[in-house]
Amino acid sequence: MLMNKTIKDLEKILTSDNILYELEERYAYAQDASNNFVSLPDVVVFAQTIEQVQEIVKIANKYTIPIICRGAGTNTVGACVPEHGGIILNFSKMNKILEINKENMTAKVQPGVVVGDLQTEVEKLGLYYPPDPSNLKVSTIGGSIAQNSAGARTFKYGATKDYVIDLLVVTAKGELLRTGSNTIKNATGYNLGSLFIGSEGTLGIVVEATLKLIPKPRCSKVIMAYFDTIDETINAVTSIIEQQILPATLDFMDRNVLKTIEQFNPIGLLTDKAAALIIELDGTQSSIEEQKSIITDILRHCNSSAIQYSSTEKESERIWQARRSSMAACTKLKPNVTTDDVIVPRGNLPQLINGIEKICKKYNLTVCMVGHIGDGSVHPQIPIDLNNETEYQNYKLAKGEIYDLTIKLGGIISGEHGIGREKREYISKVINSTALNYMRELKKVFDPNNILNPYKIF
Amino acid sequence: MLMNKTIKDLEKILTSDNILYELEERYAYAQDASNNFVSLPDVVVFAQTIEQVQEIVKIANKYTIPIICRGAGTNTVGACVPEHGGIILNFSKMNKILEINKENMTAKVQPGVVVGDLQTEVEKLGLYYPPDPSNLKVSTIGGSIAQNSAGARTFKYGATKDYVIDLLVVTAKGELLRTGSNTIKNATGYNLGSLFIGSEGTLGIVVEATLKLIPKPRCSKVIMAYFDTIDETINAVTSIIEQQILPATLDFMDRNVLKTIEQFNPIGLLTDKAAALIIELDGTQSSIEEQKSIITDILRHCNSSAIQYSSTEKESERIWQARRSSMAACTKLKPNVTTDDVIVPRGNLPQLINGIEKICKKYNLTVCMVGHIGDGSVHPQIPIDLNNETEYQNYKLAKGEIYDLTIKLGGIISGEHGIGREKREYISKVINSTALNYMRELKKVFDPNNILNPYKIF
Repeated sequence: MLMNKTIKDLEKILTSDNILYELEERYAYAQDASNNFVSLPDVVVFAQTIEQVQEIVKIANKYTIPIICRGAGTNTVGACVPEHGGIILNFSKMNKILEINKENMTAKVQPGVVVGDLQTEVEKLGLYYPPDPSNLKVSTIGGSIAQNSAGARTFKYGATKDYVIDLLVVTAKGELLRTGSNTIKNATGYNLGSLFIGSEGTLGIVVEATLKLIPKPRCSKVIMAYFDTIDETINAVTSIIEQQILPATLDFMDRNVLKTIEQFNPIGLLTDKAAALIIELDGTQSSIEEQKSIITDILRHCNSSAIQYSSTEKESERIWQARRSSMAACTKLKPNVTTDDVIVPRGNLPQLINGIEKICKKYNLTVCMVGHIGDGSVHPQIPIDLNNETEYQNYKLAKGEIYDLTIKLGGIISGEHGIGREKREYISKVINSTALNYMRELKKVFDPNNILNPYKIF
Repeated sequence: MLMNKTIKDLEKILTSDNILYELEERYAYAQDASNNFVSLPDVVVFAQTIEQVQEIVKIANKYTIPIICRGAGTNTVGACVPEHGGIILNFSKMNKILEINKENMTAKVQPGVVVGDLQTEVEKLGLYYPPDPSNLKVSTIGGSIAQNSAGARTFKYGATKDYVIDLLVVTAKGELLRTGSNTIKNATGYNLGSLFIGSEGTLGIVVEATLKLIPKPRCSKVIMAYFDTIDETINAVTSIIEQQILPATLDFMDRNVLKTIEQFNPIGLLTDKAAALIIELDGTQSSIEEQKSIITDILRHCNSSAIQYSSTEKESERIWQARRSSMAACTKLKPNVTTDDVIVPRGNLPQLINGIEKICKKYNLTVCMVGHIGDGSVHPQIPIDLNNETEYQNYKLAKGEIYDLTIKLGGIISGEHGIGREKREYISKVINSTALNYMRELKKVFDPNNILNPYKIF
């Protein structure tokens, strides 16, 4: 009944091709890349202007209907799943790069812009947008902001939050709020922008973002170093940093990932090794040569059992494509794959990685690990048949133990994917109750009727 | 009366050497580096433990007494001035570096630690804490966090907010709130840390901070390039970036600064030039040589009329010391000096700098400009006799016109110094009313009795 009224109101501001009601249409929006949550929205709408977003939110607020934003739906923690029904607000038609300002090194974009597309466009002008989530070929800036996405290059360049200088946000009341400025720095008032970044669509709806860009590094080179043990791999990472070298990436693939990728998309990865380190160097040509020589010495000293160097940009890209395909490759092992995201202080990585292996073994699960280990970040990917109840129960137990281990090692349960629906039961284990109470208060300030992605995070 | 009760309660938790009541003692805390605000605190207390801070805040909250935190008092916008009396909470005795973790590249510090001291200690271990406010030899980490301090190296490395991974905050109710984790990345819940950073002590009191460090660049070199016009100076900055070079700094001193520094502390600056650019390069040895060669070509092409290269670290440091002494040097021209902080998109710098010169000329004021112009940031420093009423009135008019010009050029009225008392009349010119309303709501959530640095910012 309420929904009928809502839809009637929506029809007043949107053309019919921008509203989906049919069951089979809504099914396409019932889940995201987290796989294990399915819940139907009541309606799916496509906004094309900021004013439409404001009107849609006002309608949702009027009838107290949940409103869940969606970019490409690549979220891995169920943050895009309309758990309590409501409106899916789809941003795929607000996907324009509005401006790239070469002189000021900024880009103004709509939330539906695909991260990789933005990177391609700015690189044509000698500029660079560093954040590189693995799904950058499909995932959107809006999603990156909602989850504070990071990626391999975060080790050197930081995460999404480090590149957002201004946001236009539609509040739960439909107001338009500007969080920042066109300037690279800003010390005027509270940093509202950082509050919206990573808030998973629960505090406001980002409708435009101004991003800081940097000069594109003149050259880059990828080194692949293989190791026979995890400990040696981490030791090499520590030794590189100790030599005061700051590579763009210090990324990791374990034995199972190497095997799985190579099995389904052979590019010549060595499958008899315990781990591979992907070290991307960037900067001037001579700097890369110097870093390469220093790092090669370190790698040999740390018992790397094979070292390969990319000689062209294309070769580097092939390595990254392989690395980024790890989740897709894992889906070939079982009907589903779950990916997780835990992070510890880097020194505790050997205990974390070895511990995750043990836990998964105990529960008869295969685990394929990748990670941005320069940051201490690990993504355990578990191929699984979600319809197999025993397997699913085992997976849930393993997951809990992995989180407990992470916390015991001084870490937290998400470094870059967020909490969403998937991890909210665990949030009180990593955030103290005082902080949680204030977070709840902030939610009330920005979304008093609890319509924005309700019940996500906590 | 209320104050007597407050002091009695304070005496229960602090030894007598940690409470100052005498008029002459309190005078030392009546102002900060902004110069033009003077207001006596009722009492000054020195905390030595987190628990003491919690107790002090509980007392202030009980009697609704303002509480103003103070590190080194180098604030330039009156944020440390106890405008409505109350308690100055001095952190100079909570000045310990609690831990430098080399493997995880983090440092845990108390708020009273001096920025330069931290830098010295971490650099001994091959690590680096980039944020470098000009007063780093005295200013504290607590102050840096309160104001989100930046500095010359922000162009390449970002501001304070980019290096804070965790804060322990005492709330207005005396609770202890943890905002983050020991990990480099964190995507669990709202980013409360970023809300406290730059909030000028109005939302909570930082009692401990965990900072991210990076590997110390292996080498560095400073290039000083002089120009005969402002336009050529900015053009050189743009051209360097266009060549995809990312120097650590692109800093600026105008003719009056060059003359003033050289007059009072001669180090061989050229005083017949319109401006000097301080370009610090860092990285590997060979990378510096390559960047130096590319930049030298650019500088010549952009009509630089003199180029000097530091050949030792000591020489570089001498240049930076001169640059950082600009405000001190200006105090020799007149009894006082005011420093300001405006920022525009970099492309609009020539109009801003030339415009500031014109405005000051109109009001018979000398202006000495420095700036982190890679960021678009300019600090107009105006030597002035604050007791000369005509001069003071002229200064106020000039200031207003400088802000109007900045805003007209798409900029804002603070990039790194904050708003404090000095600029609160102007805040509604740069922050939209919706954003300001939410900021006020946040203030109510965290500080319902308005005791934490009340009436600052807005």
